Amino acid sequence: MKLTIERAALLRSLAHVQSVVERRNTIPVLSNVLLEASEGQLGLTATDMDLTIHETTPAMVQEAGATTVPAHTFYDIIRKLPDGSEVELALDGEKGQVRLRAGRSNFSLSTLPREDFPSTASVELPCRFTLQAGEAINLIDRTRFAISTEETRYYLNGIYLHAGTSNGVDVLRAVATDGHRLARFEMALPEGAGEMPGVIVPRKTVNELRKLIDEVEGGVEVALSETRVRFTFGSVELASKLIDGTFPDYERVIPSGNDKVMSVDCRSFASAVDRVSTISTEKSRAVKLALRDSALVLSATAPDAGSAEEEVPVHYEGPPLEIGFNSRYLLDIAQQIEGEGAEFTMADGASPTIVRDAADPSALYVLMPMRV
Amino acid sequence: MKLTIERAALLRSLAHVQSVVERRNTIPVLSNVLLEASEGQLGLTATDMDLTIHETTPAMVQEAGATTVPAHTFYDIIRKLPDGSEVELALDGEKGQVRLRAGRSNFSLSTLPREDFPSTASVELPCRFTLQAGEAINLIDRTRFAISTEETRYYLNGIYLHAGTSNGVDVLRAVATDGHRLARFEMALPEGAGEMPGVIVPRKTVNELRKLIDEVEGGVEVALSETRVRFTFGSVELASKLIDGTFPDYERVIPSGNDKVMSVDCRSFASAVDRVSTISTEKSRAVKLALRDSALVLSATAPDAGSAEEEVPVHYEGPPLEIGFNSRYLLDIAQQIEGEGAEFTMADGASPTIVRDAADPSALYVLMPMRV
Repeated sequence: MKLTIERAALLRSLAHVQSVVERRNTIPVLSNVLLEASEGQLGLTATDMDLTIHETTPAMVQEAGATTVPAHTFYDIIRKLPDGSEVELALDGEKGQVRLRAGRSNFSLSTLPREDFPSTASVELPCRFTLQAGEAINLIDRTRFAISTEETRYYLNGIYLHAGTSNGVDVLRAVATDGHRLARFEMALPEGAGEMPGVIVPRKTVNELRKLIDEVEGGVEVALSETRVRFTFGSVELASKLIDGTFPDYERVIPSGNDKVMSVDCRSFASAVDRVSTISTEKSRAVKLALRDSALVLSATAPDAGSAEEEVPVHYEGPPLEIGFNSRYLLDIAQQIEGEGAEFTMADGASPTIVRDAADPSALYVLMPMRV
Repeated sequence: MKLTIERAALLRSLAHVQSVVERRNTIPVLSNVLLEASEGQLGLTATDMDLTIHETTPAMVQEAGATTVPAHTFYDIIRKLPDGSEVELALDGEKGQVRLRAGRSNFSLSTLPREDFPSTASVELPCRFTLQAGEAINLIDRTRFAISTEETRYYLNGIYLHAGTSNGVDVLRAVATDGHRLARFEMALPEGAGEMPGVIVPRKTVNELRKLIDEVEGGVEVALSETRVRFTFGSVELASKLIDGTFPDYERVIPSGNDKVMSVDCRSFASAVDRVSTISTEKSRAVKLALRDSALVLSATAPDAGSAEEEVPVHYEGPPLEIGFNSRYLLDIAQQIEGEGAEFTMADGASPTIVRDAADPSALYVLMPMRV
């Protein structure tokens, strides 16, 4: 293997793939990035066995070949090289080292043979459709915050992506829940997604995808089977195992009979919740909402610190109502509401509440109340 | 106690004083900030018993008085209030609470009586002089990085400040060392500092002072005895205990016979050291400097990762020389050199090396070599 490559192009691709490499690995080769030089291009691949990112970038290849080098060290070196550098890479097979040269800098990097690197043989992914980058961003942002971090409930450790119908229209839905709150986002079903199985995309995959699609213009190709998914965009390919579990029947926790509707300006509501929660105990973060005569009073108390109370103007015509929520969950939702108005639909102080962006029906949030 | 104060003024002063309050305190009142309202002003004081920050800020005081409230909670509330708010504070003596009101927000904060707060009775500080803010910043920045973090060597956990003579001129000197490197900064002795005792200012005091003087224009009044120091600027007063120990006779570690001089462009040297050190082991961070015929070759090796080598153009006329340093220490010093050129004065590969800013004689750094 022997090639010359622009530092900027290499840095960009390497930044993408190295991100998946864990800091500590029991299998040494998982700390490495696979380099594959073929005519006119260098392929870079990193994996943690569950998630694999592969990217190709143009290079002047004098000699094709492949090897693996320590991913973080390689990345750090390229990052620290001066802007505009040309990087020469050459595999010295006898010494088992990659020689790296750029300007006055010379590095030798230890290698592990490419045969040790987990094979990334492509499997059959029968269901294929395309998302626009903006759609993929919404699917993730509107739901990701509600993903459970409890490892025992592994089937909640991702976003549940599936086809469904909403008011007679075919939709693609993303759902995440941790048992205390639920977030659901839906959009028109893309062509080709009608036959898709319901799949749970793991959090790490969601997070890596989210980082990468910020740079994408145009479409993200999705290909999936019941056990694997692959996202392709530009010269990047992100392939991942899916969570092998059954997502709970979430529709049952979305209440349908809630009839008490409160409309509130989302920004002033969020900043009042933030202020009042300063006093709530570190552990519960509980804030009480008391509704009476078109006024909402937020309050919190903590035995040590004191108490807080703030009135927020709202539109509400129902009977008096008191309900408590975790202030962090309220703020998480408020952050996802881009319109001015938030709409809370409640039954009573002990039942789940629905929150929506008054101007955008695509996202729906369910919050379990807390005792306050 | 009853008063009204602009949120912006309160936030500014509170940000200054609360910074000294530790997150965990065995003595409850140390988590609190002392509020003292007197005619036309509010005084704020926080302390960790060693270091006390006091600041006054204008307020409309309806009723004089004093109490203490939880510092971080109070600060968080004021921080979260909307810009431009007016804050009302009133002590409810019966309930032992401070009522805070701003706009639609109402808070009750638990208090501890002012009598519990450590007294800040002023002690006699006979030695007084003035530093310009820029001088104080240099005294700190040029030396702080070398302060030891080893608690067993408590007498090295601060900056040693003392009067001395340099080439027959009276100077004020700041010195810090951790046994591996030493930093010394000197400036013309301010009027009144001639009789000062040598004192060791603790790291936390140094860091708090450094944060605060960024905003200062004009002078910093320094007053000190053998056991305490006080810095006064604007409406802020920072008083601190000094470290009760003897700073080592540092002059003895500054070599005088070094005769091999290397001049190098500081920026290109630093970035080369940074690149080469990517390969050095996490623990030692060792980088080797090999000098021969007006060329410096930096190199590093690590058993796992590989090796690195980079040539840097230098001016050097001595015999060939090899010497190893901790790359972090080299980078720390390079960061403090504001001129283009750095000057290394060496004896041999096993003796301490002197580093200076070629354009500025006020700072001097000594580095112990490492075996490489």
